[in-house]
Amino acid sequence: MSTEGSSTPSSTTPSAGAADLAARLDDLRRAYADLQARGLKLDLTRGKPSAEQLDLSEALLALPGAGTHTAEDGSDTRNYGGLAGLPELRRIFAELLGVPVDQLLAQGNASLTLMYDTVVQALLFGVPGSERPWSREEQITFVCPVPGYDRHFAICEELGIRMVTVPMTPDGPDAEAVAALVADDPTVKGLWVVPTYANPDGSVVSEAVARRLVSMPAAAPDFRIFWDNAYAVHHLTEHEAKSANALDLAAEAGHPDRVLMYASTSKITFAGSGVAFFASSPANVSWFTKHLGIRSIGPDKINHLRHATFFGDAEGVRNHMRKHREILAPKFRAVVDILDERLGDSGVATWTRPDGGYFVSVDVVPGTAARVVQLAKEAGIALTPAGATFPYHQDPDDRNLRLAPTMPPLDEVRVAMDGVATCILLAAAEATAS
Amino acid sequence: MSTEGSSTPSSTTPSAGAADLAARLDDLRRAYADLQARGLKLDLTRGKPSAEQLDLSEALLALPGAGTHTAEDGSDTRNYGGLAGLPELRRIFAELLGVPVDQLLAQGNASLTLMYDTVVQALLFGVPGSERPWSREEQITFVCPVPGYDRHFAICEELGIRMVTVPMTPDGPDAEAVAALVADDPTVKGLWVVPTYANPDGSVVSEAVARRLVSMPAAAPDFRIFWDNAYAVHHLTEHEAKSANALDLAAEAGHPDRVLMYASTSKITFAGSGVAFFASSPANVSWFTKHLGIRSIGPDKINHLRHATFFGDAEGVRNHMRKHREILAPKFRAVVDILDERLGDSGVATWTRPDGGYFVSVDVVPGTAARVVQLAKEAGIALTPAGATFPYHQDPDDRNLRLAPTMPPLDEVRVAMDGVATCILLAAAEATAS
Repeated sequence: MSTEGSSTPSSTTPSAGAADLAARLDDLRRAYADLQARGLKLDLTRGKPSAEQLDLSEALLALPGAGTHTAEDGSDTRNYGGLAGLPELRRIFAELLGVPVDQLLAQGNASLTLMYDTVVQALLFGVPGSERPWSREEQITFVCPVPGYDRHFAICEELGIRMVTVPMTPDGPDAEAVAALVADDPTVKGLWVVPTYANPDGSVVSEAVARRLVSMPAAAPDFRIFWDNAYAVHHLTEHEAKSANALDLAAEAGHPDRVLMYASTSKITFAGSGVAFFASSPANVSWFTKHLGIRSIGPDKINHLRHATFFGDAEGVRNHMRKHREILAPKFRAVVDILDERLGDSGVATWTRPDGGYFVSVDVVPGTAARVVQLAKEAGIALTPAGATFPYHQDPDDRNLRLAPTMPPLDEVRVAMDGVATCILLAAAEATAS
Repeated sequence: MSTEGSSTPSSTTPSAGAADLAARLDDLRRAYADLQARGLKLDLTRGKPSAEQLDLSEALLALPGAGTHTAEDGSDTRNYGGLAGLPELRRIFAELLGVPVDQLLAQGNASLTLMYDTVVQALLFGVPGSERPWSREEQITFVCPVPGYDRHFAICEELGIRMVTVPMTPDGPDAEAVAALVADDPTVKGLWVVPTYANPDGSVVSEAVARRLVSMPAAAPDFRIFWDNAYAVHHLTEHEAKSANALDLAAEAGHPDRVLMYASTSKITFAGSGVAFFASSPANVSWFTKHLGIRSIGPDKINHLRHATFFGDAEGVRNHMRKHREILAPKFRAVVDILDERLGDSGVATWTRPDGGYFVSVDVVPGTAARVVQLAKEAGIALTPAGATFPYHQDPDDRNLRLAPTMPPLDEVRVAMDGVATCILLAAAEATAS
């Protein structure tokens, strides 16, 4: 994430220029009325790929092709078995994720499911190093960097896991805040991390932060980092961030079992019809596989073969992602350009300039995020609900907005963002005037 | 299941003729030595489809085809969403399973996973009607008809669920034995049933047994029948058994939420790359979907579209299954013919004559099943381990063998079965002589 300029996200309150804004309230109300009069119907809510992106993988729809069903080891991918997933596909993603192929499983269509199932297995059985199943503990706590991914928080909420928050920084979660919680509180069993181009703030975990997280002392002997590398190869610029190699670093630090890594092709090929991956230490992989073997005879190996055939090798994935970049970079540039242009001097918001991933995170005047979403909705622009990036949907400062510009066409992104800027300004002016 | 003739499975001990056998011990030892000398390498262990069966679905490997990704409702199957599965595929299987399409979910590649996840959800959250999550009960018990499906029992074993057994009959589980357990014991929360062409004994639940099971009083208000209709359309003869419509019958009986129904295309199209289904009452479907929505954004809808395109309609599935039948019927006939021929007069075994499904169940002289498997193994014929069809792999009478003739070519089935017959006879003779 770029940290240059005045639009760097910070924990300070955007306020300079707010007084000017109040004076402009009538102008902004007129601008908003004009916006409403346009009768828009635009959607920046979710991180979905656009049809143009999905078209990049159209060849998959006819793969592996009649007669092509034999794995490189000679086995028939059409039949049962192969619990760990197809080796040729695992090899490609082992290279991309920087993990040994033996420690990487290729599974179904969603890393979200693998994460949920990991937590459920921990609840039912405990993880290697647990004294008892997590469900038998009085309380389980996960550390949740905020703003963060709403579906991580939903897993915790569903499973009765207490969530405590730490702030995000441009280098990932605030490692010292995490370390303090983990060192002192034996109920802290988990930490959510999106290490590369985080949802929503686009930050990349630095090597230093990664080292701190894998080496910090933990009160719980079975503390785990859920390292959700959802955007590992999802670059928006030529500066391709390389994720810290968390598994290696954890092993070096003497905590080989601390990191559980997840990834998928959901935003590489087809959302919902891709392949999800799980990587961890040999002990964790063995633990996960043992329980997996009771609920599954094996994953969809034909979909694995389909993907392996489509990509060919790791470079094939990288080349494919450059095509995504060509489609996405202009949309993200439009978002940032319009925010710069419309709000750059206003002092009412800060926003990220992501080098990858699927989101732009905007911090508006505290207490106005929900109002911005409401104003946008009433002008026909759907935004992710305020609070979505916090546990229990509660943004304590009512400040953060997550913008998802990937799905609409570029011209719609521009129109929507101009409207969003108007809503941000109006909400700020209203708040100042009141 | 045919119940004609002396080879009907029964609960009596095969013993007539055993004395004659002992006299033949030397002959049988010679025959077995000849068998070993052949250096066979044959496998009757698992219910896997053969390559010839898999070839029937070869067209799937190039489907849905480039440019084909739009669902009949106009949505893009390549993108996220559609948690309940693709409506056009659900409609086909709703007709085949006799359930309303709104009460049928199409999901991932394995009904086993859906069953496991249902039990896990029940443990974590309880089911509609539960007083508390099942995991907070002192004990949970499932009724397990035996012989039965090893993976059902493995789920219970893994999750710490006590198993009590009831005998199978030609009409399904012994309904009176089930009813007695369910009426008296509030810890009994579940019953496993494979209603059509049961694994391994091929029996079909009669309408009368189905009615009894769905209407019997239960001490637990949240008792559930896991109705695993894995072989609903897997006929081996022109007499196509029709499963009792358990959902309708349960609703009529005033227990609409009692039945959880599962099915899949694993043995229709590709094992491991098919589509699994879950059907139940509106309350159960809503309960299941609510939790599913936390762990999944949606299933692989392209695989759903691939299957819907391949089948066209329910009649397409029926026609496709007739092609399977043409391949499988001769193999099952060979198994039964060789058993009839080699063992028909011996009195040392009884066996099933299934009209569908994937298995032949053989009861040998009590105390010799494990010996038969060992003898077969040492002659190069792999059989499912003795005890596999019982909870904890413990057949109390060491009597039941599950034969799976689907995968090997017909000539290998013949050779293997002739060898198995020799092993059964030798084990019986050894037991009588000792």
